[in-house]
Amino acid sequence: MKPSLPPTDSIQKHYLKATNEQWFEYPIKVFPHHTDYGGVVWHGTYLTWLEESRVECLRSSGIEYADLVNLGYELPVIELSIRYHQPLRLGMDALLKTRMTEIDGVRIHWDTNIQSLDGQTVFITARVTLVAIDSKKGKIMRQLPPAVKDALVKLYH
Amino acid sequence: MKPSLPPTDSIQKHYLKATNEQWFEYPIKVFPHHTDYGGVVWHGTYLTWLEESRVECLRSSGIEYADLVNLGYELPVIELSIRYHQPLRLGMDALLKTRMTEIDGVRIHWDTNIQSLDGQTVFITARVTLVAIDSKKGKIMRQLPPAVKDALVKLYH
Amino acid sequence: MKPSLPPTDSIQKHYLKATNEQWFEYPIKVFPHHTDYGGVVWHGTYLTWLEESRVECLRSSGIEYADLVNLGYELPVIELSIRYHQPLRLGMDALLKTRMTEIDGVRIHWDTNIQSLDGQTVFITARVTLVAIDSKKGKIMRQLPPAVKDALVKLYH
Amino acid sequence: MKPSLPPTDSIQKHYLKATNEQWFEYPIKVFPHHTDYGGVVWHGTYLTWLEESRVECLRSSGIEYADLVNLGYELPVIELSIRYHQPLRLGMDALLKTRMTEIDGVRIHWDTNIQSLDGQTVFITARVTLVAIDSKKGKIMRQLPPAVKDALVKLYH
Repeated sequence: MKPSLPPTDSIQKHYLKATNEQWFEYPIKVFPHHTDYGGVVWHGTYLTWLEESRVECLRSSGIEYADLVNLGYELPVIELSIRYHQPLRLGMDALLKTRMTEIDGVRIHWDTNIQSLDGQTVFITARVTLVAIDSKKGKIMRQLPPAVKDALVKLYH
Repeated sequence: MKPSLPPTDSIQKHYLKATNEQWFEYPIKVFPHHTDYGGVVWHGTYLTWLEESRVECLRSSGIEYADLVNLGYELPVIELSIRYHQPLRLGMDALLKTRMTEIDGVRIHWDTNIQSLDGQTVFITARVTLVAIDSKKGKIMRQLPPAVKDALVKLYH
Repeated sequence: MKPSLPPTDSIQKHYLKATNEQWFEYPIKVFPHHTDYGGVVWHGTYLTWLEESRVECLRSSGIEYADLVNLGYELPVIELSIRYHQPLRLGMDALLKTRMTEIDGVRIHWDTNIQSLDGQTVFITARVTLVAIDSKKGKIMRQLPPAVKDALVKLYH
Repeated sequence: MKPSLPPTDSIQKHYLKATNEQWFEYPIKVFPHHTDYGGVVWHGTYLTWLEESRVECLRSSGIEYADLVNLGYELPVIELSIRYHQPLRLGMDALLKTRMTEIDGVRIHWDTNIQSLDGQTVFITARVTLVAIDSKKGKIMRQLPPAVKDALVKLYH
């Protein structure tokens, strides 16, 4: 079973900036294993939701992350910052909103926040930067895998 | 904001055995944070899905676990056994099936398995036993909170 | 950098039963990320300590688990059962004791418990079974890698 | 069993800046549960080590974090940024170095990095900000609990 990705147009754009405010939405729910002694979500747990939302956002644009990995690419996090505004508590439902804001060479920048369902409370805001690497060489790629670039470009139109 | 649970009929049944094969289904998907160096789901990750499915199954019968906690009850795991038949891999979708098999006093027994979507592969099978405790006293309760018992009884009919 | 393991005597023993009560001790300490909303250790957290103690016990007998992996072997968990007697709480120190009880072909059985430092309280008891697999073939091995078997045999004398 | 903290001198300093380069060192080791499908440490795992090192650094200055919690205080993370320079791999040992760089009212700033044992490779660098909250009120405190402030001041001399 060979992994496959959509064909590429081999475009040459290296820099893309999001021109709209299109957010990808990902619902989250707080289970016991997400919490700590304080009855709130442990601060590291948010990174699992940030990751899940990026994988699902890529999937929505036609990129299965597991296929990328099987093809020998990875998109590890190289930088991450997060602000904790209000704590999420056991049993709460919330809405995560994420979007790619910029592609700068092989770096992909994401903005994310988690809000209450009514949009009145912001729990966290985060910025994450990924970079494309070639798993076999263990090196940063010179450019994004074409299929990835094509799919990401589509996200901006 | 005071937590509330559905009213109780104050039934006196202390032992219940499931008489049908009704399973609660919970879809799961493997994200990078679930995996380990082997490219498969780390064996401890399954416990997060087992927990999530129990919480959702209880919710489907009218019990919000967070409400129980706010009322001073908890249902911690006191015994757990799990067999790993086949590994789940990055990117896979699968179906978790769980059901309460027996209520023995304040002990609640669950059977769970995780299967492929086509039902042809079983990844894990597990048995979990919960017990009802009074959080303030830190002690096992003599009987289940009535609202819990009522809701659970409904699951069997 | 090629991984290496100690040379083997190519012994043929396939079944070994521990003849003494030698336990490997591994100290543990409860940090916030180990806990849940109840202020106690989340029940799945114990699996991280069980794993760490096995890796350290193997190391004490001359087997670096990472070397095994680099050589193409793995020792995944295929069965696990655990009883939760008393909860560990935030800030507590405790002592994990583990030992291999039996090697049955390519299956390695471990007994583990976690006790208070004074030995008066038992928090959990657990049994775990590992099996040796060949990572490339993705199959259970017919016998333990010789270096592993030799090292394990030493643990019994 | 009442939690206790060392007596306080009730000092009035509200702003402290570290005047030396004293780092608190915390050894870390990569176990299977820390890794992901790439064979390297999952990016969120580092937050567990950052937390452990802060708790141990506080302990070294006489503050048991669990005692603080029992007294009704918490020091949650309100801001965190981390750069991933090189990945840690399964089986590696490394050295985490952390220090409080500044106390600004009730905010405590930490700088942390994780290095190879020979100091030649830096794996991650991170900045974390904590804030003191009163758990019962669920509010940020006007000033640090005196015992905490006293202990922290000692760290700077």
